Amino acid sequence: MRDDLLRACRAEPVDRVPVWFMRQAGRSLPEYRELRSSHSILDVCRDAELAAEATLQPVRRLGVDAAILFSDIVVPLQGMGVQLDIVPGTGPVIEKPIRELQDVERLRDLEPEDDVPYVLDAIRILRDELEVPLIGFGGAPFTLASYLVEGGPSRSHLHTKTLMFGAPEVWAALMDRLSSSMATYLRAQVRAGAQAIQLFDSWVGHLDPQSYERYVQPWVARIFESLSDLDVPRIYFGIVTGELLVPMAATGADVMGVDWRVPLDVARARVGGLPVQGNLDPSILFAPWDVIEQQTLDVLRRGGGRGHVFNLGHGVLPETDPDVLARVVETVHSWSPGG
Amino acid sequence: MRDDLLRACRAEPVDRVPVWFMRQAGRSLPEYRELRSSHSILDVCRDAELAAEATLQPVRRLGVDAAILFSDIVVPLQGMGVQLDIVPGTGPVIEKPIRELQDVERLRDLEPEDDVPYVLDAIRILRDELEVPLIGFGGAPFTLASYLVEGGPSRSHLHTKTLMFGAPEVWAALMDRLSSSMATYLRAQVRAGAQAIQLFDSWVGHLDPQSYERYVQPWVARIFESLSDLDVPRIYFGIVTGELLVPMAATGADVMGVDWRVPLDVARARVGGLPVQGNLDPSILFAPWDVIEQQTLDVLRRGGGRGHVFNLGHGVLPETDPDVLARVVETVHSWSPGG
Repeated sequence: MRDDLLRACRAEPVDRVPVWFMRQAGRSLPEYRELRSSHSILDVCRDAELAAEATLQPVRRLGVDAAILFSDIVVPLQGMGVQLDIVPGTGPVIEKPIRELQDVERLRDLEPEDDVPYVLDAIRILRDELEVPLIGFGGAPFTLASYLVEGGPSRSHLHTKTLMFGAPEVWAALMDRLSSSMATYLRAQVRAGAQAIQLFDSWVGHLDPQSYERYVQPWVARIFESLSDLDVPRIYFGIVTGELLVPMAATGADVMGVDWRVPLDVARARVGGLPVQGNLDPSILFAPWDVIEQQTLDVLRRGGGRGHVFNLGHGVLPETDPDVLARVVETVHSWSPGG
Repeated sequence: MRDDLLRACRAEPVDRVPVWFMRQAGRSLPEYRELRSSHSILDVCRDAELAAEATLQPVRRLGVDAAILFSDIVVPLQGMGVQLDIVPGTGPVIEKPIRELQDVERLRDLEPEDDVPYVLDAIRILRDELEVPLIGFGGAPFTLASYLVEGGPSRSHLHTKTLMFGAPEVWAALMDRLSSSMATYLRAQVRAGAQAIQLFDSWVGHLDPQSYERYVQPWVARIFESLSDLDVPRIYFGIVTGELLVPMAATGADVMGVDWRVPLDVARARVGGLPVQGNLDPSILFAPWDVIEQQTLDVLRRGGGRGHVFNLGHGVLPETDPDVLARVVETVHSWSPGG
């Protein structure tokens, strides 16, 4: 197996800097749009064969160094008893938002083999097919809580923060339930064959550092701690996290994902030299090739060749040309980590 | 006139830390909703009497130390020949987005007395009415460009960045046109009676620092430079600007507005000791009073009492209780800047 990804996550020397893209599976690929023409997103997530196929598509086409399970962070919430849908153009919509302790208490602990067997089956299928590592993933508790409390995507995260600041005991109960289930979920993915895991904290950048440290960091740390006996890199990612990188690194993550706003060398210094993942601006992929190439090389130089997993600073935008992604992979692979 | 705001902007000692709120006029006030029951936003902006009334409402009710002209950053774009509307629930919508040089060339230079007389008339009315300074404002060129290029609000700013990275000469022409008109616009506001100006760069935090320095900073610097002969503080504000504060401070701004993500003492160190404005999280205003009070005092302590204009880290959310805003004003005013 090509293990550059795992080596980079452990800061070991690599022949080539490994590269994968957040949302590499999905709408930017014509073969995915074909797959989706007859299935909803949740249909694909809940069918092991389809999820495995969507996971494999970008690996075949782009030459990336890792696969990431095709799924959505809200999938395990269904297994916890939450009624939800993913609405095209909007995102996850929760039928009954969580606002009170009794709402939290209705959440069941996730039992992955019973509640989300298709996720684990997809991983088992993929392990037989793949020659690159498979990354499992889950949503971080703040981000999951935000969907549950707001009822869907939000600009201000007002209800979430109101609960967090105004009812800290309800907040703690919710974070406890979510982090416990996420720890179980990620462990099950590793047992099924995932060789690395990524915790997505998409919305955490809406918090100031003190609130993060008080209301979020302990729960994330607990998830990572619970996985510390497993020999898999634990990647932690959010956007708009410049001010949070120090406390985020203190959660025990092995690799810190960084969005494009923080130059990678600056980010690395901020996280105490931890391996980093990122961070080309996904919008740059629409520029002329010479601009893309120059920015790709700049990210590589700032990444320093060791302890760097090349990625975008956020997910692939749906309008992205897959040929450009493939060309970025070639550029990363042609670059010599030795300088 | 109560001049604490102007003194704080010059880092002079104050008896009380001055406080105002971005979007203090607007939907959080019942008297504003009453005003809007028979007028669109643009109607209010384009009628000097109504704009003056909306500007005065929060000053009467909240006891703030500054008024900010009720208007919208897209108002002068109409004067430059852009067809647009402000759609409730969406924001500004531009009829023909700008994508090419000929689109840029269709933009006329703003002539404030002819194109936006109601803005200047509102300022003249307000100067007779107000006992606190009046802040004039404009949109920074990147943020205005984003509306013009995207055609409205955007999450990814994809078209804007595509133009910026892919057609730098068109981008430069657009920034030139916008910054020249904004310089004229702000100067006209000061001549009409505005005693401070704020440049809103709402979307600039979507850029990485190098792109900001290359494609945005020179134009903002040119605007501030063009106003340097006027004896008014020039405030510069954007959100998600933690990584940009250093180059933003280098534009020549007198006061740096900071969102809630960067603790104010950290921000102040980053901008080389420049006066700062901010930065309570607007979502905190929905928490119990003891949390709000504690966070307000924390912002005051970090602000250090001198060279600090108290504000939120972003605009007042429409659901905010005005009584809570008034209570925050009282708390700020009761705090002793001497420690």
